[in-house]
Amino acid sequence: MNVTVGRRNRHYRTVSFDARNNAVRLIEQRLLPHEFRVVATRNFQETAGAIHDMVVRGAGAIGATAAYGLAQGARAFRGRDLKRLSLHMNAVYQTLQAARPTAVDPVNAMNEVRFRMNQGKSVSEQQDLALAAAEDFANDDVRHCEAIGRQGGPLIQDGMRILTHCNAGWLAFVDVGSATAPLYAAQAAGRKFHVFCDETRPRSQGATLTAWELAQQGIAHEIIADNAAGHLMQQGEIDLIIVGSDRTLGRTGEVTNKVGTYTKAVLAERHNIPFYVAIPLSTIDWNLSSGRDVPIEERDESEVLGAWGAMPSSRGSGPGFGRRVYVRVANPGSGARNPAFDVTPPELITGIITPMGIFKPKALWKNRGKLGCSVS
Amino acid sequence: MNVTVGRRNRHYRTVSFDARNNAVRLIEQRLLPHEFRVVATRNFQETAGAIHDMVVRGAGAIGATAAYGLAQGARAFRGRDLKRLSLHMNAVYQTLQAARPTAVDPVNAMNEVRFRMNQGKSVSEQQDLALAAAEDFANDDVRHCEAIGRQGGPLIQDGMRILTHCNAGWLAFVDVGSATAPLYAAQAAGRKFHVFCDETRPRSQGATLTAWELAQQGIAHEIIADNAAGHLMQQGEIDLIIVGSDRTLGRTGEVTNKVGTYTKAVLAERHNIPFYVAIPLSTIDWNLSSGRDVPIEERDESEVLGAWGAMPSSRGSGPGFGRRVYVRVANPGSGARNPAFDVTPPELITGIITPMGIFKPKALWKNRGKLGCSVS
Repeated sequence: MNVTVGRRNRHYRTVSFDARNNAVRLIEQRLLPHEFRVVATRNFQETAGAIHDMVVRGAGAIGATAAYGLAQGARAFRGRDLKRLSLHMNAVYQTLQAARPTAVDPVNAMNEVRFRMNQGKSVSEQQDLALAAAEDFANDDVRHCEAIGRQGGPLIQDGMRILTHCNAGWLAFVDVGSATAPLYAAQAAGRKFHVFCDETRPRSQGATLTAWELAQQGIAHEIIADNAAGHLMQQGEIDLIIVGSDRTLGRTGEVTNKVGTYTKAVLAERHNIPFYVAIPLSTIDWNLSSGRDVPIEERDESEVLGAWGAMPSSRGSGPGFGRRVYVRVANPGSGARNPAFDVTPPELITGIITPMGIFKPKALWKNRGKLGCSVS
Repeated sequence: MNVTVGRRNRHYRTVSFDARNNAVRLIEQRLLPHEFRVVATRNFQETAGAIHDMVVRGAGAIGATAAYGLAQGARAFRGRDLKRLSLHMNAVYQTLQAARPTAVDPVNAMNEVRFRMNQGKSVSEQQDLALAAAEDFANDDVRHCEAIGRQGGPLIQDGMRILTHCNAGWLAFVDVGSATAPLYAAQAAGRKFHVFCDETRPRSQGATLTAWELAQQGIAHEIIADNAAGHLMQQGEIDLIIVGSDRTLGRTGEVTNKVGTYTKAVLAERHNIPFYVAIPLSTIDWNLSSGRDVPIEERDESEVLGAWGAMPSSRGSGPGFGRRVYVRVANPGSGARNPAFDVTPPELITGIITPMGIFKPKALWKNRGKLGCSVS
């Protein structure tokens, strides 16, 4: 999407490839929202490091990064021996996979690239095919998000006030995003609306990434404490809720997403506010048969016990803010629990917005053919 | 309650009076949890300043501070002319009232002190009566909180996991607290239990004040992001919820408390978890006939857009932490909404724990005689 740096407004993708320098270009997300910088990884090891160190995060974004990383590794190979290239690619694949071992998107993306490149009859042909496959993967990611926007955009009417949670925006994909896609589509159609961004403690992705995205795109928005959403719903100040998902169970319609999503769904039901989940097809898990089987990651307690932010400063990169630091908010002698995700049951969800249409959560399984399910 | 400073464990009240130096002694709450310090105000102007600047906060605590401040002002008067003392007291009263103009507790407290001192026949007699009345007010505050503990303590059984929101602890009163009183009573009775403290964004009173109190008292606890409570309830990890209240409507049973309370009550109903509100009688508003008439303060957006915390440090007052600073977490170009309170309807509340017993919210009005209501 568009980013204004200084006075220039330019289009950026979260992840792209610089073929001349054989480099993966990434928006350095750890510096946002206080600094915008695009970094280039010079080799597949650096690309794996960028995934591991959270320079890039979000399902679609790390999938594309791994796909490009695999092509980058292939293109760095010198020689004409296909067998030695294949051994080299094993190492590249494993290095990139180990960077975020629990994620499924990098694996799916790399399998696709590897399958395509193996059709090549020579090293240089395989190298070209690897890059073409990675580019196709990235372009497909964008197209799927655009399709989510076409499906979900009409839900957003003039004057609506929309709540979102965490960041399922273009920074989590190659471009456009999932939960944000309907917003961008409605904006492109000329409709005016207002977005409330849950700050989304403990990592504050709503206050940092989503708010930054919406500001860059010129969409009216305000950040709220996660505690305030219930009050705003009670006051009739929220008309629609759209969130993303890390894993949606195709068999049951249960939605795993950032912790706090379930709470918003419970509140939405009480106040009769439509609650939608926007997802690309790759997010659907067709295997698990119960949300109780979804492993809920417990992250480090330091996230809950403190916050990352920028110190006010007369210089520095953000307008009026200096370097980012971690401050300890909580009582120094106390510990914390930090479950990172929760599971929302299907009866609380109005609809699942996919690139292929909007479905009731429990209708996903019935429509699995249309939704690309390969499990029987 | 008890505080350990260095190796010494001593009993402190949030607010007390040093008669020899005619000083109000206050725990400096703005430094907590990273530093414990008791400050002494040398005159009523400084006492008013401490209320205004939030050195002391919480309904009971500022009531007692104003009561002591009035006695402090009376005792500083030199001369024998009762008329001139009375004029002087008008100025003292107005200065203390203006320090937190929307609060009702300082006014009630000062009216009581003034009524009592006016029984005196000489300046010195009035001065003595003022201090005695202020001490009585503070002691009554403690006794009311202890009575809340006696009423609510039996709700807490061995092994229970209890959620609380914000700080309705002894730092908000002269001692003991309201929502914490049943915890301290159950601990005194030898029962073991675990407390989850909602961090309570945006001001984080749960992570800072409540966690600090419980740590000082040796009560097992963990801090959670406000987003995590719903997930823990879903997992069956919360057995009981106790919160405080800033204003409870005696006519309807609606409870005004820190924003996010309503959300926890909605979640508790869904999961059949008992939800209690602990209050002293002074918190009951017998006049308003609808929660819609309670003014909901919207505070400065900077609270939502950033956080106060301590920088890690090799020196400094807290263990391993240095000075407290404000960091900007959110996107620099974005604004925020910051409603500070919300209203929970009576049907979501299991019971109101008062010093006189536990009542269904809608039974407050029927029992208004017993609950000290002077409105007909």
